[in-house]
Amino acid sequence: MSSVKRVYTFGDKKAEGNGKMRELLGGKGANLAEMNLVGLPVPPGFTITTDVCTEYYKYGREKVIEMIRADVENAIKGVEKLTGMTFGDDKSPLLVSVRSGARASMPGMMDTILNLGMNDDAVEAMAARTGNARFAWDSYRRFVQMYGDVVLGMKPANKEDQDPFEEIIDEMKEERGVKNDTELTTDDLKELVVKFKAAVKAQTGEDFPVNPWDQLWGAICAVFGSWMNERAILYRKLNNIPAEWGTAVNVQAMVFGNMGDDSATGVAFTRDAATGENIFNGEYLINAQGEDVVAGIRTPQQITIEGSRRWAAAQNISEEERVAKYPSLEETMPEAYAELNMIQDKLEKYFTDMQDLEFIIQNGKLWMLQTRNGKRTGAAMVKIAMDMLAEGLIDEKTAVLRCEPEKLDELLHPVFDKKAIKNAKVIVKGLPASPGAATGPVVFFADDVATNFEETGIRAILVRVETSPEDLKGMLDAAGILTARGGMTSHAAVVARGMGKCCVSGAGELKIDYKKRTIEIGDIKIKQGDWISLNGSTGEVYLGQVATRAANMSGDFAKLMDLTSKYAHMKVRANADTPKDAAQAFEFGAEGIGLCRTEHMFFDGDRITTMREMILAKNEEGRRAALAKLLPMQREDFMGLFRAMKGHPVTVRLLDPPLHEFVPHFEKEQKELAEELGISFEEVRERVESLQEVNPMLGLRGCRLGNTNPEITEMQARAIIEAAMNVRAEGTPVHVEIMVPLVGNHKELRYQKNIIDSVAEQVFAERNDRIDYMVGTMIEVPRAAVTANQIAEVAEFFSFGTNDLTQMTLGFSRDDIGKFLPTYLDKGIIKADPFRVLDQNGVGQLVREGVFKGRGTRPNLKCGICGEHGGEPSSVEFCHYAGLNYVSCSPFRVPIARLAAAHAAIKAEIKSKNE
Amino acid sequence: MSSVKRVYTFGDKKAEGNGKMRELLGGKGANLAEMNLVGLPVPPGFTITTDVCTEYYKYGREKVIEMIRADVENAIKGVEKLTGMTFGDDKSPLLVSVRSGARASMPGMMDTILNLGMNDDAVEAMAARTGNARFAWDSYRRFVQMYGDVVLGMKPANKEDQDPFEEIIDEMKEERGVKNDTELTTDDLKELVVKFKAAVKAQTGEDFPVNPWDQLWGAICAVFGSWMNERAILYRKLNNIPAEWGTAVNVQAMVFGNMGDDSATGVAFTRDAATGENIFNGEYLINAQGEDVVAGIRTPQQITIEGSRRWAAAQNISEEERVAKYPSLEETMPEAYAELNMIQDKLEKYFTDMQDLEFIIQNGKLWMLQTRNGKRTGAAMVKIAMDMLAEGLIDEKTAVLRCEPEKLDELLHPVFDKKAIKNAKVIVKGLPASPGAATGPVVFFADDVATNFEETGIRAILVRVETSPEDLKGMLDAAGILTARGGMTSHAAVVARGMGKCCVSGAGELKIDYKKRTIEIGDIKIKQGDWISLNGSTGEVYLGQVATRAANMSGDFAKLMDLTSKYAHMKVRANADTPKDAAQAFEFGAEGIGLCRTEHMFFDGDRITTMREMILAKNEEGRRAALAKLLPMQREDFMGLFRAMKGHPVTVRLLDPPLHEFVPHFEKEQKELAEELGISFEEVRERVESLQEVNPMLGLRGCRLGNTNPEITEMQARAIIEAAMNVRAEGTPVHVEIMVPLVGNHKELRYQKNIIDSVAEQVFAERNDRIDYMVGTMIEVPRAAVTANQIAEVAEFFSFGTNDLTQMTLGFSRDDIGKFLPTYLDKGIIKADPFRVLDQNGVGQLVREGVFKGRGTRPNLKCGICGEHGGEPSSVEFCHYAGLNYVSCSPFRVPIARLAAAHAAIKAEIKSKNE
Repeated sequence: MSSVKRVYTFGDKKAEGNGKMRELLGGKGANLAEMNLVGLPVPPGFTITTDVCTEYYKYGREKVIEMIRADVENAIKGVEKLTGMTFGDDKSPLLVSVRSGARASMPGMMDTILNLGMNDDAVEAMAARTGNARFAWDSYRRFVQMYGDVVLGMKPANKEDQDPFEEIIDEMKEERGVKNDTELTTDDLKELVVKFKAAVKAQTGEDFPVNPWDQLWGAICAVFGSWMNERAILYRKLNNIPAEWGTAVNVQAMVFGNMGDDSATGVAFTRDAATGENIFNGEYLINAQGEDVVAGIRTPQQITIEGSRRWAAAQNISEEERVAKYPSLEETMPEAYAELNMIQDKLEKYFTDMQDLEFIIQNGKLWMLQTRNGKRTGAAMVKIAMDMLAEGLIDEKTAVLRCEPEKLDELLHPVFDKKAIKNAKVIVKGLPASPGAATGPVVFFADDVATNFEETGIRAILVRVETSPEDLKGMLDAAGILTARGGMTSHAAVVARGMGKCCVSGAGELKIDYKKRTIEIGDIKIKQGDWISLNGSTGEVYLGQVATRAANMSGDFAKLMDLTSKYAHMKVRANADTPKDAAQAFEFGAEGIGLCRTEHMFFDGDRITTMREMILAKNEEGRRAALAKLLPMQREDFMGLFRAMKGHPVTVRLLDPPLHEFVPHFEKEQKELAEELGISFEEVRERVESLQEVNPMLGLRGCRLGNTNPEITEMQARAIIEAAMNVRAEGTPVHVEIMVPLVGNHKELRYQKNIIDSVAEQVFAERNDRIDYMVGTMIEVPRAAVTANQIAEVAEFFSFGTNDLTQMTLGFSRDDIGKFLPTYLDKGIIKADPFRVLDQNGVGQLVREGVFKGRGTRPNLKCGICGEHGGEPSSVEFCHYAGLNYVSCSPFRVPIARLAAAHAAIKAEIKSKNE
Repeated sequence: MSSVKRVYTFGDKKAEGNGKMRELLGGKGANLAEMNLVGLPVPPGFTITTDVCTEYYKYGREKVIEMIRADVENAIKGVEKLTGMTFGDDKSPLLVSVRSGARASMPGMMDTILNLGMNDDAVEAMAARTGNARFAWDSYRRFVQMYGDVVLGMKPANKEDQDPFEEIIDEMKEERGVKNDTELTTDDLKELVVKFKAAVKAQTGEDFPVNPWDQLWGAICAVFGSWMNERAILYRKLNNIPAEWGTAVNVQAMVFGNMGDDSATGVAFTRDAATGENIFNGEYLINAQGEDVVAGIRTPQQITIEGSRRWAAAQNISEEERVAKYPSLEETMPEAYAELNMIQDKLEKYFTDMQDLEFIIQNGKLWMLQTRNGKRTGAAMVKIAMDMLAEGLIDEKTAVLRCEPEKLDELLHPVFDKKAIKNAKVIVKGLPASPGAATGPVVFFADDVATNFEETGIRAILVRVETSPEDLKGMLDAAGILTARGGMTSHAAVVARGMGKCCVSGAGELKIDYKKRTIEIGDIKIKQGDWISLNGSTGEVYLGQVATRAANMSGDFAKLMDLTSKYAHMKVRANADTPKDAAQAFEFGAEGIGLCRTEHMFFDGDRITTMREMILAKNEEGRRAALAKLLPMQREDFMGLFRAMKGHPVTVRLLDPPLHEFVPHFEKEQKELAEELGISFEEVRERVESLQEVNPMLGLRGCRLGNTNPEITEMQARAIIEAAMNVRAEGTPVHVEIMVPLVGNHKELRYQKNIIDSVAEQVFAERNDRIDYMVGTMIEVPRAAVTANQIAEVAEFFSFGTNDLTQMTLGFSRDDIGKFLPTYLDKGIIKADPFRVLDQNGVGQLVREGVFKGRGTRPNLKCGICGEHGGEPSSVEFCHYAGLNYVSCSPFRVPIARLAAAHAAIKAEIKSKNE
């Protein structure tokens, strides 16, 4: 057994392990080793392997301690040597951190324990060295508290009580008459330590361990013990992580930036994280702890002279004052700075990416605590990738992979002005339903949006409990949309994303009173005309007007898009219902329309009345009369789409939603409609009632409409074919795909195709000319995926409608999911809203099955996706692997989908090379 | 080409073809050949093969006629020889029928043409031979009409008009001032023939063919032509029948039972079709046509002397009068009778089943027109099968297969008295939702059922627009249930079937006025207290009281059930929610409870108030308080179930339906509830509203309830475990299976199982004792089937909930399907209501996938089905092939399911032997 290596040391730019040994050293241990090997001055330490964890459960605590005692003692000696401090020493005590580290980070396991080695001697030594007794004692009482909770298992007396240590603090604060922990004095903290220890003794019957070695063994074993606590076990069960994996333990020397004026702490970026500019930058504080830099009590100083000067200029601070009060690190500690600068350069080249560094200078010596790829804005992301490509640091594929598709969104929508937003007051938070920023006066009815605009020239914010297709026109004219109900795929959310319009949905705290035209949120009352602002990217709603600025698409953006076209295999189409949407999509590089929802054409102006006339007709004859009026309108719309797409494929879906979505549900409007149509109010009411369904999502809609009322399909088929022939006659090529929705059975499609074909032949005969068209179907009912082999006998293309497919496969109504989704996300039962991120394991299997079976029948079957998932990067990647020919999404998601498609192709290529 | 045989003759107990040659001769042609080979005196004729149909489309009409002319002429000569008549003769003209006959019977193809060969000469000859000029001329005008429509393609002048011949008849009837065709005289019919021919000439420009050979070639080619008509093509497309199959043409001599007093026509059964008694029986008429026997104008006479005497006794007719007026065939035509009797005996032995015969005696010669297995009542079916088994005619397996599972239903429910029902007036027809017969006074509210019973001792018929769980108690006490809305799987239908209670659902013509307590159906008005009667087996509703008689289960029934147990592989369980249901199920042979819907226990008496208190509670504490009250009630129910099932498995499903099903939706009841619970009405109303969902079927229900409110699962788990331990302590063995509903994701089940296990351990600790139990899940969300491998890691058994699985896989809400199901059935888009008959191709694939994947993880996984399909025979057969261990159905369907399970096993055995 002694031949097995159980402890791996690191430090002084050397390490016994390396970055690839995640299985043995855990993720954290492997990283620490790798940072040393790269040449960073990392606080030294060691990792106890995951195998020891397994041995811990096999042989027990005592035996395992014996097995690793010598190695751990040697490793601590090594750390002492490198730091010049001694574990357990009363003058220059070595303090260490102890952390767990499994292969993958895993909630439920032990937190970090800091400052281990602390005791009555060490605290005095630390007070002396830092000249900050309060800090030393605060560190001490925190250590006792953390160690007491985590290692010694201190528990509240009753289930309802809070942490026993917090209770002691609260008592003391009450005695002292203070509110915050920070108001406690050094003496108070000393008293706390005494009381904490007494509490430990009272509950555990044992003295708090003062011997650092006892502390260390306790902490190491606590990490192993936490591997088998209830939460960790449950997490593993849910995520199929075998118990045999075990966790490693990382022990590392503490370093401090508050050891005097030759000490400092700071963070730095190798490039500008906001703009992407290629300049080294960052902030630091002398004689401070890490948290001081971000706490805002002291003003952090810039690292470089150049950065410092820029900063001073922006603050109207003279060079003199700057040098006196806010000198850069380059000026105050030139040696440490030089080393840091060298390191940052080396790291960026090593990782070939912008790095975010944390460092501490302890008594003049630089320690790197962390380096990682730096977070950045969308704009910086694109610029850095394109710059690094130009610099030859990375190749084209890497440059593409460096850009996260989702972050492109920031570049496509207006955003709030940075300064303005700082002072804005968040009054409520909903779901970030459609990104961007919007500000405007509140209105409550779709009509009022137009009225307001006509009267004032200002676009309003439309606030509704939820929106319906009747609100479409108002939504189009609004600055943004806010709803109290509905999720990420509610009507408001879907339509707004399609329009590229800012929307916050499902802000449940809003109490909307349509009659009084007011909103209440707790104490806040907002009336019609009051200004609010929406952040569609975060879901935040602000009181008042917050300035916005338009999206800025730099030349780098265009370069990136060119690269995506070069590498993506899948085409990207847009879901667009109007010529305007289509034009926008075309501008964003859409290579066709994957979904035109014809029903959206029925809400404009007089059309809705004609549509209602059709729905309320008593018989086929009456329906046909109304449809005849709709025909020219639809034809005109289709012509606009065909013109906009210039020969790219246009997939037109036949009427899909249940008819009750088109009829008015309130008495007043029903009476108006009755008058308009010259029928009785009772007749209207009865017909509307008869359209009600218990589960409309599973009712009379989709091709079930066209199969029970074939005249609807006849009209739509005629409008499409005639439009296509008209546009071709104008000299523009057309590519027509007619899509039948909600097919679950090949016979349903056969009936619809028969109607379409026969109408087409009629039109051809009338015009003595022909045009090519394809008839295909949505695969959105699970049965369609399961029987795709039969359906492909009729269908000439498939388009996976993953919104409905998700609803039916999971049995989740997207309108009702809000009642349990938060709980499910909280508990980790599901990882993401399945209407946003495709459920690859469930719905995805049906997509794969559909493609596989469909192509079994028709080998070259064109397959695409037109659900909301078509614009979500991980889902797009899945579509690539599922063998789809294209994805289709909202126009504003097209660039994101293009980038995601390129990612998928490049990753697949890399993967296949590695296999 | 001349070496190919294209025409197959039959007659005189000889045939060139045989019963196995369906591909070449079509179904009908093969049968005619076989009947000859069996030795029946069948009117002679011939079959032109299906290959000729193919040649017809390859070579064209003229060429094909040349190819078969000689063979057809020879075949006609053969028929002439056997019948002693001559085709085209003016004294003894041979008339023939011409029929199409494909491999499988196929709607859309040509109908039969009778009396071909008829012309001005033949009609006179026939009038002379039959002594019935009117009959001869009526046959003639019918022939011209049929031939004109079918062969000559006569069409109405305008699309809206009716058949041109019918128009001529109508004109004439108007001229003559008569209403019915039968009132037209022989001269009128003569005039019609002239006018018909003139109409043909006017529209087609050609004379009506008088030459029988022209007629024959026209008819043969019309059959071939009909193979490619629009309806036939569509039918083939929908049913995947290749066009290459083609149709055969059958030409057969006409024979007549009205050729004088030595002629007769009749039908006969080899055993009694009503009782199953083994006596030859039937009816005949001298000098009559087939339709006269059933038309009721003349009283048909009995075939056997014994039958004749029995009949006379029942009619109070003396033997003297009988012999004089109604002699049997045995007496009037002893020779023909002797031959018929010999044939019937031979046929029953040949087919080893009760035969239904049609015969004609033409001038003393017996001709058999048809023999087929006779239809019979459920009782006769069982008796005949058991008798034939005892007689050694068939073996056990055949006897089992002879009994149709679905027909067993007749034996299990009360039925209407046969005589009483004859005079009953059908006022409306709904869906046959739950079989049986019921009669009683109408009431409209569940409460009134009990009140009525208490006051009058009479069980009422509960009439509702639709029922809800609140009506449960009333339904249980009612004689039967009638609803205006809802399909075969509506609440009313499902619950009634479960109770074995007669129910007619979805009688859409009912206008129910709850306020006035009346029903209107057209002109008929029924008020509370008026009697109506329901036929749950046909869906018919009668006005007034119709006498019923109780089900009669003979000893043969028990014998049959024993045989099913001997041969079935699958076990049959029952869906039962109460100890009473469970006892009934046990009596019918259920081997366990496959589904106990715990929610049904929440509606009884005070429980619903406590349940509502739980639902309306503001927080977990309130919910727990209410649940604590429900616990002892649930425990008591479960104890009853465990006792009733005596150690057989009992599968208890945790709470499933959306909570809004438990709360009152009308103001009055909401106010009452508010008072009862001591909270405000507004609070009740708001909470009820907040429970509303857009698509409740896909909302917060099933395990989503238990995962958002774990305290519900805790209570139910405790009630189950405690009940099981209590009953075991009484000395009764128990077998506990806890079932988690609506799981779509293995983590959902994991959470629920954790709760159940931890409650169980608590109970075990409290009692210092343990009991075995299993935790499994419904597979009813498509995702569960698709990810069954993961789910089986947690689930210890699967039960396929095919009701919900059908809803989600097909996207059909069972509450809304009525809007398009009739159209879909009409058009043949689907073949049966998928909530009644399992959709094997769609839903069935998911069941197979679920079983396959589940057993991949857990090889011995017990799999069952507990949807409504568990009692439907074709679905049960599917379950056998899918490898399920059991099916579970309503108690009253248990015998049916047992028989179906035996069928499946026997058929599978036969199939595997044949492979």
